[in-house]
Amino acid sequence: MTGTALAPFTADDYRVRRERAARAAAEAGLAGLLVAPGPDLVWLTGYAPTAVTERLTLLVLAAGQDPVLVVPTLEAPDARHAVGEAALTVRDWADGKDPYAATARLLDGSGRYGISDNTWALHLLGLQKALPGTSYAALTEALPMLRAVKDAAELELLAAAGAAADRAFEEIRKVAFAGRRESDVAADLAGLLRRSGHGRVDFTIVASGPNGADPHHEAGDRVIAHGDMVVLDFGGLKDGYGSDTSRTVHVGEPTPEERRVHAVVREAQQAGYEAVRPGAACQEVDRAARAVIADAGYGEYFVHRTGHGIGVTTHEPPYMIEGEEQPLVPGMCFSVEPGIYLPGRFGVRIEDIVAVTEDGGRRLNTTTREMVIVE
Amino acid sequence: MTGTALAPFTADDYRVRRERAARAAAEAGLAGLLVAPGPDLVWLTGYAPTAVTERLTLLVLAAGQDPVLVVPTLEAPDARHAVGEAALTVRDWADGKDPYAATARLLDGSGRYGISDNTWALHLLGLQKALPGTSYAALTEALPMLRAVKDAAELELLAAAGAAADRAFEEIRKVAFAGRRESDVAADLAGLLRRSGHGRVDFTIVASGPNGADPHHEAGDRVIAHGDMVVLDFGGLKDGYGSDTSRTVHVGEPTPEERRVHAVVREAQQAGYEAVRPGAACQEVDRAARAVIADAGYGEYFVHRTGHGIGVTTHEPPYMIEGEEQPLVPGMCFSVEPGIYLPGRFGVRIEDIVAVTEDGGRRLNTTTREMVIVE
Repeated sequence: MTGTALAPFTADDYRVRRERAARAAAEAGLAGLLVAPGPDLVWLTGYAPTAVTERLTLLVLAAGQDPVLVVPTLEAPDARHAVGEAALTVRDWADGKDPYAATARLLDGSGRYGISDNTWALHLLGLQKALPGTSYAALTEALPMLRAVKDAAELELLAAAGAAADRAFEEIRKVAFAGRRESDVAADLAGLLRRSGHGRVDFTIVASGPNGADPHHEAGDRVIAHGDMVVLDFGGLKDGYGSDTSRTVHVGEPTPEERRVHAVVREAQQAGYEAVRPGAACQEVDRAARAVIADAGYGEYFVHRTGHGIGVTTHEPPYMIEGEEQPLVPGMCFSVEPGIYLPGRFGVRIEDIVAVTEDGGRRLNTTTREMVIVE
Repeated sequence: MTGTALAPFTADDYRVRRERAARAAAEAGLAGLLVAPGPDLVWLTGYAPTAVTERLTLLVLAAGQDPVLVVPTLEAPDARHAVGEAALTVRDWADGKDPYAATARLLDGSGRYGISDNTWALHLLGLQKALPGTSYAALTEALPMLRAVKDAAELELLAAAGAAADRAFEEIRKVAFAGRRESDVAADLAGLLRRSGHGRVDFTIVASGPNGADPHHEAGDRVIAHGDMVVLDFGGLKDGYGSDTSRTVHVGEPTPEERRVHAVVREAQQAGYEAVRPGAACQEVDRAARAVIADAGYGEYFVHRTGHGIGVTTHEPPYMIEGEEQPLVPGMCFSVEPGIYLPGRFGVRIEDIVAVTEDGGRRLNTTTREMVIVE
């Protein structure tokens, strides 16, 4: 959450977002929103403190009330500079003072507030104690779709991040895999992402052979061998917006079974993509992809949801998962990433970022989804 | 919190820490401890998930009960590998299931629990909803000194981190300052910290001229000029343990006033250091340093506390601040870092890490605290 490169939005863009958020909170029956450092705060103010510490930083947003950013005195100059003094009131509290008492004065003592998911428990407990009559809901539960529908400028930034990740894939497929450690290829991949314009690299998964069967394996000391299937899953932030792409490559000629499993995942990814259209529930994307894998007899080996939203983070609502009935809306942007994981043997995952358009989905990754043979 | 390099402690070391923590919780009248990813979890298990997300990971610790680490299914293989399957029970929950219900089964429905400060509000709210009879206290409030007293192995690691930061300072004082941007010198400093063995660099503050008067200024585009005072404040983690050092250097010959202000801060730092002894309250360290600055007439320009603890983080209890009556105990380790900040003009800060010994304090930084002249 720190050091996030920010897209060049104007103070006005942020004001419009804050007004929209305050209205959405009121419509949801909330007294307001309490926003901690992290993606919500970046999205609403452009401000990301250089470190998230035990010192309270909190944006208080409520309909019909001027928003106030509460910050530690030490960080007040940076905060005022980042948000623009004229655009947003910054109120600071000094070391040794009670930041919760200071914040409580801005709140309705019997109100229900939406609070950023990643707010520290320390701060929530401080507020609950200072104002026992208040109650709280996690922001993604109260307003899960707050940041979900991207505007045109945001979609452009997401498309640019996707294109940059694609350039990194086009290069990484040319490097040597066999005989090198996963961590070496991961380092190459991180370098390629940075060279393609990523200011922050969040993950560069290189999961070879049996490691590919662990969907969250990162990259380790294993030396990649001829005959390995290798799952690549990589992403980060470019100009403050995320990329997240997976391709599964093979070192040398694959076996018929490896081809079959890859083809099933590819078909599942296509089915998930084709299920994207305005009005469809998120769970329909999951169901479409999952049905293909289940029909092929691999249902028990697809052990995660089909996708997650992306924006100022690489991982956010909406989630493509059974039970998520939220309808898709043009401007939503998320991953479609089914996989099959055969314990002790190998794994396959294929992932594109897809934006919802008026009449379907638009892939923000366009490199081939066929199995690429590497050396 | 992610990607933390871990010191080579044994499964037994972690077990002893968990037992100590569970006992401390019981003595504090708590039903147990709930520990989220971050420094507490690293210290108690050696485990740091590669990313902290909305998926619940939580260690449940209670006296007279086997500890259980609750993790998302996706991350279970990594978690089991990190903690050692035999040493700690790992229980996983799958996407789409309710992790709070799963955790609730491990808790006393009317108990009061200590919970890591940095646990996401999302998770605390989930637990409060699943078990309305429970109550919670932030871990640093319930057991502020849980990680504060370091054992011999930890002190050795902290001393090694301090020595590594000192090596970086000895090199950075030789580089060119005048005519280069703060961010260029900061990049040099980050490289030097890495070369000295830091696996993670947390901050490299280079605050020149008037920027030095903002205690949390990081490093920007300002070109450093002849005649500038420059505050350097840098640190990170080496082998999982922290460094944090400040020195204020001057480009060319300082003015008499600059010399005077630097001498006052140096004397204040010495006074703070000399106040360190077992049994003294934390606030006495702050008072000793602050008195020197106040007596010199600069009291209003020392706008932060005198110090903070350091360990598996670069910033933790105990805090050297007025009102903190916690007595110092041998093995505690913290910064002593008074400063004077003259708005619009310049700032001076001098910081060493100091460990409490049986008969006083031991500096873990030993580079000169005199004003170094750079070019």
